[in-house]
Amino acid sequence: MNDERMARMCLAAISEPGHSAMGQAVSEFGAEAVWAGLIDKDRQGPLSVRARSIVATELAERTEQSNQRFVIPTDEEWPSGLADLAGCPCVQSLTGEPIGLWLKGNGHLAALVEQSVAIVGSRACTSYGSHVAADFGAELADAGWTVVSGGAYGIDAAAHRGSLAGRTPPVAILAGGLDRPYPAGHHHLFEQISQYGILVSELPPGEHPTRVRFLSRNRLIAAVTLGAVMVEAAIRSGARNTLTWAGAMNRLVMAVPGPVTSATSATPHRLIRDAEAVLVSSVEDIIGLAGPLRPAPTRPPSPTRATDALSAKELRLFEMVPARGSISAGELAPRASLGIAECLGLLSRLADTGFVMQDGEGAWRLVPRRER
Amino acid sequence: MNDERMARMCLAAISEPGHSAMGQAVSEFGAEAVWAGLIDKDRQGPLSVRARSIVATELAERTEQSNQRFVIPTDEEWPSGLADLAGCPCVQSLTGEPIGLWLKGNGHLAALVEQSVAIVGSRACTSYGSHVAADFGAELADAGWTVVSGGAYGIDAAAHRGSLAGRTPPVAILAGGLDRPYPAGHHHLFEQISQYGILVSELPPGEHPTRVRFLSRNRLIAAVTLGAVMVEAAIRSGARNTLTWAGAMNRLVMAVPGPVTSATSATPHRLIRDAEAVLVSSVEDIIGLAGPLRPAPTRPPSPTRATDALSAKELRLFEMVPARGSISAGELAPRASLGIAECLGLLSRLADTGFVMQDGEGAWRLVPRRER
Repeated sequence: MNDERMARMCLAAISEPGHSAMGQAVSEFGAEAVWAGLIDKDRQGPLSVRARSIVATELAERTEQSNQRFVIPTDEEWPSGLADLAGCPCVQSLTGEPIGLWLKGNGHLAALVEQSVAIVGSRACTSYGSHVAADFGAELADAGWTVVSGGAYGIDAAAHRGSLAGRTPPVAILAGGLDRPYPAGHHHLFEQISQYGILVSELPPGEHPTRVRFLSRNRLIAAVTLGAVMVEAAIRSGARNTLTWAGAMNRLVMAVPGPVTSATSATPHRLIRDAEAVLVSSVEDIIGLAGPLRPAPTRPPSPTRATDALSAKELRLFEMVPARGSISAGELAPRASLGIAECLGLLSRLADTGFVMQDGEGAWRLVPRRER
Repeated sequence: MNDERMARMCLAAISEPGHSAMGQAVSEFGAEAVWAGLIDKDRQGPLSVRARSIVATELAERTEQSNQRFVIPTDEEWPSGLADLAGCPCVQSLTGEPIGLWLKGNGHLAALVEQSVAIVGSRACTSYGSHVAADFGAELADAGWTVVSGGAYGIDAAAHRGSLAGRTPPVAILAGGLDRPYPAGHHHLFEQISQYGILVSELPPGEHPTRVRFLSRNRLIAAVTLGAVMVEAAIRSGARNTLTWAGAMNRLVMAVPGPVTSATSATPHRLIRDAEAVLVSSVEDIIGLAGPLRPAPTRPPSPTRATDALSAKELRLFEMVPARGSISAGELAPRASLGIAECLGLLSRLADTGFVMQDGEGAWRLVPRRER
């Protein structure tokens, strides 16, 4: 793990999701500089105290031991939609792109959410809502759409279960550490999702969800999807918050109507009546609205994602080159589990494409980001 | 019955509702002139043949014997909304204000529909739709709103039954003669409506409903109400036609959502999604939208409704003065079941307000309409 990734992991571990000051500091000064500043032993304040209590290697170990991986914005797997959070207006004083995400599962997150919608709704749903969420989840997954939800009881669980039965792996974004998934009653459901799809969290292993973490988690559900569908929600509902995020981020805001005799129809109906959500009554409706919003199949290489052009092996090697100083190919090859010849071949290709350079002694170092 | 009313009754009896040629002829030449032209024995054509087969006194007798009354646009009881049909665009080539209406019941039609909404929907409704229509009907009636519907099985019947249980009499507008109400299974329901509220038809006693008469009847439901609420309707539904009329007449177009799993939710959901109808999920929603459209409590006297200023007795006497020629007070008093003194008093008041005048012999005649 390179220093940038390690610094981001440590910063993500000590900062509360959705509080944008940390994100702004990281984008202005770089994660390593912010982290170095925080752990400086002359520095006061609760964040520094907390930072000095973190043992980076233990955090990395705990991540690995619980079969998680930590991804950062320069990773291929980082969903491009998350970048929209940087410029998005606050919802309940939360905002900002995550510093990093813990993932657990076998899929490729960015590829999965490229064509995805969120299904959200009441924990205390009716059998009608549960039926609709499961049906929509299964039909969307069968049509090649990834269903994203929050893993809660009720509508979330029904949507996940439906999509587990379909042809496209599901994504659950949780509000606590992925080694202690909440609610505990969904232990088996989360096992299935991580085996077939991906569990996502902004929180490090060991962390519990809190009220504010549920709200900041909702912004991620909105950010990674093309739109959010509310199936059922009473007047006061957390699912309303996810749709507010979707609206703030110019995602599609959709709602499924239900019987007017049911309290859980109140919020979908109000949103539809006030033209804050589009009425959808079938998966065809959803795909008809969200389909045209899919990114074009071949996107031009983004200047901020130069690493998109690298092969997986090249990327892995590139990430092992320290951010500061240099390293010899002889040191690098065993760390990357490569033979020396293959390692030199890959380094030479990375040098040709402007990612690394050799110093006077023949050791390898990163080309400064601005010169790449 | 004066000659104008009699001519309109005969014309209404031979013409098909919603075919505007007759209405245009009547408004251009007057009902008596049109009728006189039609029954001229030199005139050919099926309408003249039909006109000559009508015995006006028999029609009037049959109307009276079945406890019906025939009202015309100059009557106080004529709903003012019907006038909007004169300038309304055609729906399925039907249009036009009725020439007259047969009423059965104890209420005052114009007063009842001044604050009214229509509830319409599928004949083959679900128990959910029936429940909602009955609840809304009862709650609207309790809130002082008249519920208007078409007397059909399903949603119509549920709305009528609900409103019969409320504090405001219901109105049913039927597509056939009121002495042979359709469907026959609603015989008892129609009895209750005529005892507490009013049955309305554009067709004379003895006539059966036909497909086109259902469609032309729908325009009356839309015309007399401030708005129409669709409770349930499958993709192909007659209730859709009533909402089209409501839209064409700038009435409120409202729809109640339901389970997306029900085929009878298809049309309400489509109308809401396409912004052709406003979503309403409660009677509060309906009253919130329709309430502001109620006419102001005291309206300035309309120039076309000079008779609005007359007392009931004056109006009755005025209507007994023949449209052509004159009549003595001695002849008029027994016809109006009045003593001669009271009759002369009323005639004198009618003369003061410019409705009647005396000729050289002291007999009474109408002041020509243009001079009133």
